[in-house]
Formats: sequence, structure tokens, C-alpha cells
Amino acid sequence: MKTLGLIAGMGELPKLVAEEAREKGYRVFAIALEPLADKNLSDHVDSVNRISVGKLGEIIDTLKKNHIKEAVMAGKVPKSLLYKSKIIPDLRTVKLLFSLKDKSDDSILLAIAKELDKDGIKLLNTTDFSSSLMTPEGILTEARLSENEWKDIAFGWKMAKEIGRLDIGQTVVVKDQAVMAVEAIEGTDEAILRGGKLAGEGAVVIKVAKPKQDMRFDVPVVGMNTLKSMIEVNARVLAIEAGKSILLQRKKIIKEADEAGISVVGYKE
Amino acid sequence: MKTLGLIAGMGELPKLVAEEAREKGYRVFAIALEPLADKNLSDHVDSVNRISVGKLGEIIDTLKKNHIKEAVMAGKVPKSLLYKSKIIPDLRTVKLLFSLKDKSDDSILLAIAKELDKDGIKLLNTTDFSSSLMTPEGILTEARLSENEWKDIAFGWKMAKEIGRLDIGQTVVVKDQAVMAVEAIEGTDEAILRGGKLAGEGAVVIKVAKPKQDMRFDVPVVGMNTLKSMIEVNARVLAIEAGKSILLQRKKIIKEADEAGISVVGYKE
Repeated sequence: MKTLGLIAGMGELPKLVAEEAREKGYRVFAIALEPLADKNLSDHVDSVNRISVGKLGEIIDTLKKNHIKEAVMAGKVPKSLLYKSKIIPDLRTVKLLFSLKDKSDDSILLAIAKELDKDGIKLLNTTDFSSSLMTPEGILTEARLSENEWKDIAFGWKMAKEIGRLDIGQTVVVKDQAVMAVEAIEGTDEAILRGGKLAGEGAVVIKVAKPKQDMRFDVPVVGMNTLKSMIEVNARVLAIEAGKSILLQRKKIIKEADEAGISVVGYKE
Repeated sequence: MKTLGLIAGMGELPKLVAEEAREKGYRVFAIALEPLADKNLSDHVDSVNRISVGKLGEIIDTLKKNHIKEAVMAGKVPKSLLYKSKIIPDLRTVKLLFSLKDKSDDSILLAIAKELDKDGIKLLNTTDFSSSLMTPEGILTEARLSENEWKDIAFGWKMAKEIGRLDIGQTVVVKDQAVMAVEAIEGTDEAILRGGKLAGEGAVVIKVAKPKQDMRFDVPVVGMNTLKSMIEVNARVLAIEAGKSILLQRKKIIKEADEAGISVVGYKE
């Protein structure tokens, strides 16, 4: 039986990835990143090792000791941890951070993938184990979109792809073809709340994959928090990239979006 | 005697522009945009007409009636007024907003310049009347910059220029070659406070002109508020574009920056 190493960050995604991996016939060996991973991850995997998010050396050693050759990353690991936390990195993490040309998401994540690879651990695409969660194309909710909202999606899409190309963030908030907020390190929810308030109401939220998205990490994820933030500021439209983003709790999100009069669109250029 | 129309937004800049215009031999006829313009603008100009910021038709009619052929814009007019205020636009403003392909700053401002031009009013460069305020090149404060801070300036400069090219904003906040905050419609101070807090301390703030900056409007301005926001979040470096940005209260800013251990750099590529 094949074993998959699951490097688990925040939220529901690691559990869902674990379930799909098991359906595919894998035994799932989880590294639950402390303090981020959900405490009941153990109900969904075959074994759990809790390791601090700053201890790359320990993570790799644990995977090696357990003869893991394939691994997958799932669940958010906020980069802001690097800047404001009391997490103490181990030597391998310090070395890695020191070697980077910059601290963009891609630089950090590619370096981690290389470190894993050095020790014979291949990082697989997150999306290989979340196929049922991928955002489908089309309008997923009931409400129709106005012509102006379609224009906002097209305008915001272009902006969001540029922001992704620069590896700054995945989300922009627009209204009437002007940018209300650009997500950087603060995360999607904060950007939605800020941009939505500035827009007054009727904001359009666009979340996309990078132009050269690496499907091994940093795949855009939309969950209930995103919708809740939108409801809080009376935003109107959520456009997410079809086929390249993960939509968690799809049924629940669509139901609540319909109740709030929010349109959810799986968009593709 | 030539008369210059001064379309005045917020802050000190309109007064300083008026003073330089008078030194250049102009009579200054001010349109004080309500509710933005400083109440004591009248002490610095030859006549003041207070007109609501939403009344482009009335502004142009007033300039025409007074035979103004040349005008200049100075002082911030927050675009967020369009989204969240009780300002009621007149017919000419509504028509203008409706005709735009998008509501980026350049689209709006270019359209206003064209409307003025239709009625024989030429918009001059703001910088023609603020030559003494332009940011000089070099380190303006005492503190030396670390190698990592220079790297942050170079990294943030590239990002800020791209954000300017997209006409999203003028300011980015970085630390250790990662983007903490991108300014959109919220303004520079908010972006500094947000990014600075996320960075913990030691943030580097970069404010630039757009790659194709139109010197008639939207010239980057740095004032005491910028520095105060930086002090509040323990930011460390302020890099502003030499020769293409306005530095208000230069002596005071440099003195207070020195006291706070903040480096101010007039930067050029």
C-alpha cells in the first residue's frame, strides 16, 4: 500500500484531501503543522505527527524516517507567521529563508519543494487529491448579473492576474471598474472587508490562480469565511477561477449566497 | 496680469502652489473644492469660490465666466468620495462618469482635463508650480540603510511601479523582500498602517510616480501624515521618487524622521 505524506495547514482542506487520497488507495501519514492544523485531523488520516510550522528539518526527517516518497501540501499557512510570531525556526528553515532571492510565496514554496526533493520526497499536486472540490465553470447561484457586474469581473480579472503574476496575492475587490482593495499578506478575508467597506456596497470579489500557478501549493481556496466576509460588507459578486481553484462546502456556500443575494461565478477567460 | 485657476483639494499643497504661482506673476483664482479644501486657503489666493467636488459643470462655468484660460490641480481628492459619500454630482459630472471605460484614476482625471479643454481651459502641470517642493535625490536623513533595506527598496520599487502601471495606487509596503501591503483606494496612510502592523516592525515604504505619470494631476505627495503613520507602526525606511514627487514640510519631516530613526530616501532608478 502506498503512503502519502500530508503536510497540513489550516482549515478543512487537509481532511478532504486525506479522504480523497484514501479513496485513491493511499495510507495517509499526516504532518499536522502546529499551531495551524485542525485538532481533529486524526479522525481522517492513518497517523498524525504534530510539528511546529517552523521546523522544516524535523518535518523532512519525520517523513524520511517513515519512508514517505510522495507528499502533498494542503491548508493555508499564513506567510505573516514569518513576520509577527514567536515561532522559532530550526536550522534547516533558517538556511532556506536565508538563501532566498526574495520572500514571495513562490520563492519560499519552491525552495521547500526542492528541500523535500533533495531527500527523495516528491511533492504532488494538491489538486490531484481534491478533484471533486475544483470550481466548475458557470454561474453557480440563482441571481443574474448586471452588465456592469460582468464588466467588473472582466476588469478585476485582469488586475487579479497581474497581482498574481507579481506574486503579491490572489484577490482583488473592485466596483464600477475601479480597484477597491488588493490582497497582499493580510489574506483574502481582510481584503474583502476593507474593499467592501470602501465600495459602500455591491463590491465584486475576484480570486484567481497565478498565470503560472504551481498546482503543488498555493492553489486558491474559497470557503465559508470568504462568503461571510462578503455578506458582512454587502458585496454582490464572487468570481473564482474555474478549474484552477478549490471551492469548499460548495452546497452550503451556494445556498447561503442565494439567500444573501450574492452571485458566485466559476469564471474562465 | 495672467490669472491661474487653482482647483484645490485637501491639505497644504494648494497654498504652496498658489504662493509659487504668485511668485511667477500670476493672479490666483481658486476653486476650493467642498468639503475638502482648507478653510484658510483665502489667505493665500486672490479670490476663492467654494464649489462642491461633485459639480464639474459649475466649476467649469465659474472658470469660464472669469475668463480663466489656464488652471492647475493641487491637493488630494479621494476617489473614495465617489463610492461612499452623499455628494450629489451635477449633470456634467454624471455624463463624464458614465462615459468612462473604467474608473481608474487616469481615466477620470484625463476625462476631466478634456472637459476643461473643451471650454478653452488648459490644465498645466502641478509640478510647474511646486518646483521647490520636488523630492531631491539621495539619502535625506542621517541614519544609514542596511544592505537588506536597500534590497527592500529595489524589490518594492519594482512592485510599486507595476502597481502604478496598473493605475491601482502609488504605495507599497515591504519587508524582507515580501509585499506587506498594496495601496488601492484606501490611501497611503491606511496602507502604511496595515502593512507596518503586518511586518511587525522595520517596514520599508515605497511611494512612486506611475511609469507614465501625467504631471497635471495625481503627482505623488508625501507629508507629515505619511511620516506619522510610519512612526506609529515602527517602520524604518521611506523611499520616494526623486524628481517626480512632492515632499511637503521637508525640514520638519527630515528632523522628525531623524528623531524617530527613520531613513528618508529620494530614489531614482
